[in-house]
Amino acid sequence: MRFFSDNAAAAHPAVIDAIARSNQMDTAYDGDALSQRLDGAFSELFGREVKALWVTTGTAANCLALAALCPSFGAIVCHRDAHIENDEAGAPAFFAGGAKLMLVDGPGAKVTPEAVAEACDRVRKDVHQVQPKALSITNATEYGLAYRAAEVAALGEVARSRGLALHMDGARFANALATTGESPADVTWRAGVDALSFGFVKNGGLNAEALILFRTELADEVAVRRKRAGHLASKGRMLAAQILAMLENDLWLDNARSANAAAQTIASAAGERLVYPVEANEIFLRCTPGEAASLRSAGFDFYDWAPGEIRLVTSWDQQGEAVEQLAAAITRL
Amino acid sequence: MRFFSDNAAAAHPAVIDAIARSNQMDTAYDGDALSQRLDGAFSELFGREVKALWVTTGTAANCLALAALCPSFGAIVCHRDAHIENDEAGAPAFFAGGAKLMLVDGPGAKVTPEAVAEACDRVRKDVHQVQPKALSITNATEYGLAYRAAEVAALGEVARSRGLALHMDGARFANALATTGESPADVTWRAGVDALSFGFVKNGGLNAEALILFRTELADEVAVRRKRAGHLASKGRMLAAQILAMLENDLWLDNARSANAAAQTIASAAGERLVYPVEANEIFLRCTPGEAASLRSAGFDFYDWAPGEIRLVTSWDQQGEAVEQLAAAITRL
Amino acid sequence: MRFFSDNAAAAHPAVIDAIARSNQMDTAYDGDALSQRLDGAFSELFGREVKALWVTTGTAANCLALAALCPSFGAIVCHRDAHIENDEAGAPAFFAGGAKLMLVDGPGAKVTPEAVAEACDRVRKDVHQVQPKALSITNATEYGLAYRAAEVAALGEVARSRGLALHMDGARFANALATTGESPADVTWRAGVDALSFGFVKNGGLNAEALILFRTELADEVAVRRKRAGHLASKGRMLAAQILAMLENDLWLDNARSANAAAQTIASAAGERLVYPVEANEIFLRCTPGEAASLRSAGFDFYDWAPGEIRLVTSWDQQGEAVEQLAAAITRL
Amino acid sequence: MRFFSDNAAAAHPAVIDAIARSNQMDTAYDGDALSQRLDGAFSELFGREVKALWVTTGTAANCLALAALCPSFGAIVCHRDAHIENDEAGAPAFFAGGAKLMLVDGPGAKVTPEAVAEACDRVRKDVHQVQPKALSITNATEYGLAYRAAEVAALGEVARSRGLALHMDGARFANALATTGESPADVTWRAGVDALSFGFVKNGGLNAEALILFRTELADEVAVRRKRAGHLASKGRMLAAQILAMLENDLWLDNARSANAAAQTIASAAGERLVYPVEANEIFLRCTPGEAASLRSAGFDFYDWAPGEIRLVTSWDQQGEAVEQLAAAITRL
Repeated sequence: MRFFSDNAAAAHPAVIDAIARSNQMDTAYDGDALSQRLDGAFSELFGREVKALWVTTGTAANCLALAALCPSFGAIVCHRDAHIENDEAGAPAFFAGGAKLMLVDGPGAKVTPEAVAEACDRVRKDVHQVQPKALSITNATEYGLAYRAAEVAALGEVARSRGLALHMDGARFANALATTGESPADVTWRAGVDALSFGFVKNGGLNAEALILFRTELADEVAVRRKRAGHLASKGRMLAAQILAMLENDLWLDNARSANAAAQTIASAAGERLVYPVEANEIFLRCTPGEAASLRSAGFDFYDWAPGEIRLVTSWDQQGEAVEQLAAAITRL
Repeated sequence: MRFFSDNAAAAHPAVIDAIARSNQMDTAYDGDALSQRLDGAFSELFGREVKALWVTTGTAANCLALAALCPSFGAIVCHRDAHIENDEAGAPAFFAGGAKLMLVDGPGAKVTPEAVAEACDRVRKDVHQVQPKALSITNATEYGLAYRAAEVAALGEVARSRGLALHMDGARFANALATTGESPADVTWRAGVDALSFGFVKNGGLNAEALILFRTELADEVAVRRKRAGHLASKGRMLAAQILAMLENDLWLDNARSANAAAQTIASAAGERLVYPVEANEIFLRCTPGEAASLRSAGFDFYDWAPGEIRLVTSWDQQGEAVEQLAAAITRL
Repeated sequence: MRFFSDNAAAAHPAVIDAIARSNQMDTAYDGDALSQRLDGAFSELFGREVKALWVTTGTAANCLALAALCPSFGAIVCHRDAHIENDEAGAPAFFAGGAKLMLVDGPGAKVTPEAVAEACDRVRKDVHQVQPKALSITNATEYGLAYRAAEVAALGEVARSRGLALHMDGARFANALATTGESPADVTWRAGVDALSFGFVKNGGLNAEALILFRTELADEVAVRRKRAGHLASKGRMLAAQILAMLENDLWLDNARSANAAAQTIASAAGERLVYPVEANEIFLRCTPGEAASLRSAGFDFYDWAPGEIRLVTSWDQQGEAVEQLAAAITRL
Repeated sequence: MRFFSDNAAAAHPAVIDAIARSNQMDTAYDGDALSQRLDGAFSELFGREVKALWVTTGTAANCLALAALCPSFGAIVCHRDAHIENDEAGAPAFFAGGAKLMLVDGPGAKVTPEAVAEACDRVRKDVHQVQPKALSITNATEYGLAYRAAEVAALGEVARSRGLALHMDGARFANALATTGESPADVTWRAGVDALSFGFVKNGGLNAEALILFRTELADEVAVRRKRAGHLASKGRMLAAQILAMLENDLWLDNARSANAAAQTIASAAGERLVYPVEANEIFLRCTPGEAASLRSAGFDFYDWAPGEIRLVTSWDQQGEAVEQLAAAITRL
């Protein structure tokens, strides 16, 4: 029973079906009918004109966005526990030509306006120090917390005041919205977000993520950068098909709700053990090595996160029974 | 009836099936059972130990290989008509940190040992000129010619003598071998090839290519570079599944033979119009604008390539009838 | 008697004096009084507001300018014989994050508007091909020809029409103007030049070149890029002092006239042997290997340039006697 | 009376003289007689064969070394207060193709073996996290502490055990050795240092630093990188002349001793105010804003470093009187 990552989950059957249905000769790259529908589909979802490009990984979505938002000689402010800092192999610097990450702290991997302001204001305004040019936040955060629209707006405000562009890594964007119930628009462009990596792969997609540009004038440049990074698939329709299938009837929200519900079941069992409130599909538990071993021997697979701490991740397709068993096992500890 | 690119062809049903079959939760990235089978499958095909990594595009395969084979301050010798020069948006320089392409000429986009030697020997051996460090050839070439093993061996010899690593862009590797009947081993590592971009997407795959490293010691570095370029898919098993399906019962060769056969049918009709011998699935025809218009009005879609020249590309799934109709239409011109 | 490069000439005594005079403690980097005078001095010379930054090499001047004028994913059009293509070790791609050089031909290393237009128009307007974003010309050219203002204006016109920024490599800018008698303004910003590498090192300077920005809004970015490339000298006053000494009483023009005059003396002796008209301080001569050997045995040092062709370069400090002897030796051949 | 940076000091008269004496035509770049003497001069100083290249700035020396020691996809461990992190505008990432700095803490900007080991061991050995490949330390540190040979050896040991190359930023190498009295060899290659940025500019040089390679096999690559970064001066003899003048009769040590002595005079006056022991030519003092204002009104110029802390830097040419006056003024506070 695997609880180590939603990365490893299956794709939703509707996604597989959509791929199969899109499997006929068509124009290559993103000139096909399905790819051409993305701008419209996401413009509708976000209630304003946006540009939407498919890519195959979240790292690519994040770093293509950051390369367009931050010059090679600038810095990107992000949380010390951000995925772009810890899990993308230096891709932000690669895509953005050597740009630097400027790390801030904050509970639960949440970035606060104060931390951003302080990080920016600490930098001397001269040519010797790398000047911050962008801010990247992750929603839901790496510790499973969801930003409220008002929080993002406060970050957007501080970003604007310091001349920073604002990027949101939404690898688990769906899980965040499923929890807060806020609208996609409120938590992004209305709050000052310039670009969003809208994740689908952890949430039922196969290998298609969407990069949403609220600054639509960046679309041409990002399209060039996508090709230059080897990310322009020749059968783009198979990627667009996945995304459209996820959007249809809000499958993306339904899947996220399933994963979140599983997480809540486990969280309820965990009680005092919880390191952070559970607002998405990740649960961080205080757990001795012996307890972890006992869970593992009961058939549950997960990551040790820190000394005395484990991470459990639920997925859209997590079977109810496995979740119940895990909750029970945690209760028994 | 589309003859403008094999890029736009459908994926083979066996590939779609393989994807569907691999759709269950498993370890993420390339730790799954299918991904782990690639080294073995290709080692068997090539008759020696190789390392094999999936990537999603040919550009990524080419440029990851080149980045490992050429230092940032070096040059990559290639044909003036090479895909890496003309159709990859500068990706070689991006992946390889600013490395330069050094262009040579040759009929039918084939590189000759003499051209490579001359290009290398023209460079002053000082710090002011960029020194060539790698050679990249395309097989089948951009004009549909297939290298024979002996030709590659001669290039391998000149590469070795000048200190160049040797890369083969095999976007249409299958089509080349289907024509020459030579073995994968003879035309690659036995001839001095260090890395091969083994293409599947134009030949029935969906979005999986294989990067084959004959210099197996490069595998760790290439795996890091793949992640850093945003090309490490979290559900890698869906890419491995495609490649394994293509290898099974030599589907890759069967598909290539189909496409090549369609090309031969058209080539026979074209006769004197052929610009190059047809050795793969691309046909370049001399054709007046009026003749091109007449073919188009008959329902055929293709690229104008140069003044008075059109390009037709056949695919593994090209319907016999369409091919016959095109041959007939060309005969009628 | 050395005629192989003006690179190797001595610095003018006034330059050495200026360095010595500037040798007292002062503010570091470019905050000192001398560095602060550069903008004004060059604004006066060019008859409009410009920004001027010292750098230590022509390669740095060229490539800092190009990095500001061309995005990493763009191409820089230049002559096949341009210094940036042949003698800067790939620095343009390094500074500009992987930007590509797009080569054109033209007699005497001169770029023509037609060649630029053709090179640009040949590029498909899609994401697969690198789009030209800048044009770089060398004045005087690598073969010693001087652009007239009208020629530059025609290039400026075609650059503007294709969306290209225009850079002038003026390593021998002084030599060109000394010949044409045109004004610095006419041959640069009035003709559409956005940035000029104004060379002093080959013309009596020690190790200071000036980068002149006619698009003054680029100055802040270029200053950051200069530091980031390790080119912000801590005792910048010693670089500024050199440049100001060269500007004083038009020493830069006087030195160039001396070098040009020496070149004319040699050119007159060379007659039919000249490969190109001599408009600066470089002379290219048709010359058999035996003749070259005879010149060398008479004590003259120079480069073999191409089979049957040698290059002679005169300097501001070339002794009259050596020049006369060389002219006589050539006459005797 | 300026105590804000040794960067701003004058060059030593012997250096100016050496420049003037080297001012005749000679071979360009580093082919001249003076440049050719550097390898030998430093090999003698270090008691073994080394390769030595001149560059014009410490940033260039540091980053050329790091680019050769760390792959683009690797990380460089350094102190949080290191010059390469705080004062080089992101040059390490620029030169090294996107390599990352991995920051460690330690008192007085000194790196400890434990901190390096912990930083390395915290990194997961997978492709998602950037793997450390080099360690860079500054001697004397940014807070004026000198490493003893045994300390460097311990760092060399931990570097070797984790597969890290070891670089020393010796912008104030002379000041450190003048204090410890240890030999250049003991504190560098015998302790495991692979490359040293040997600073002269803060210590009486004009604009020449030396990059010393103990791994001599890197010299060719570094020479190419130097040219590619625009740092190959055409009149390299004027840079070599400066360095040779500094080495002659140990002028570099004499100058450092002068600066250090001035620092000791001030340190003695400062007593309890000292933030760090004074082992080079930098003094960090606890000082209220009012006290700082009073020093400034007495004619002393310096940096505010942190709240309640100022930095004073002495130079080789600091006049005895000014130093005595400053010491007295501090005593009076």
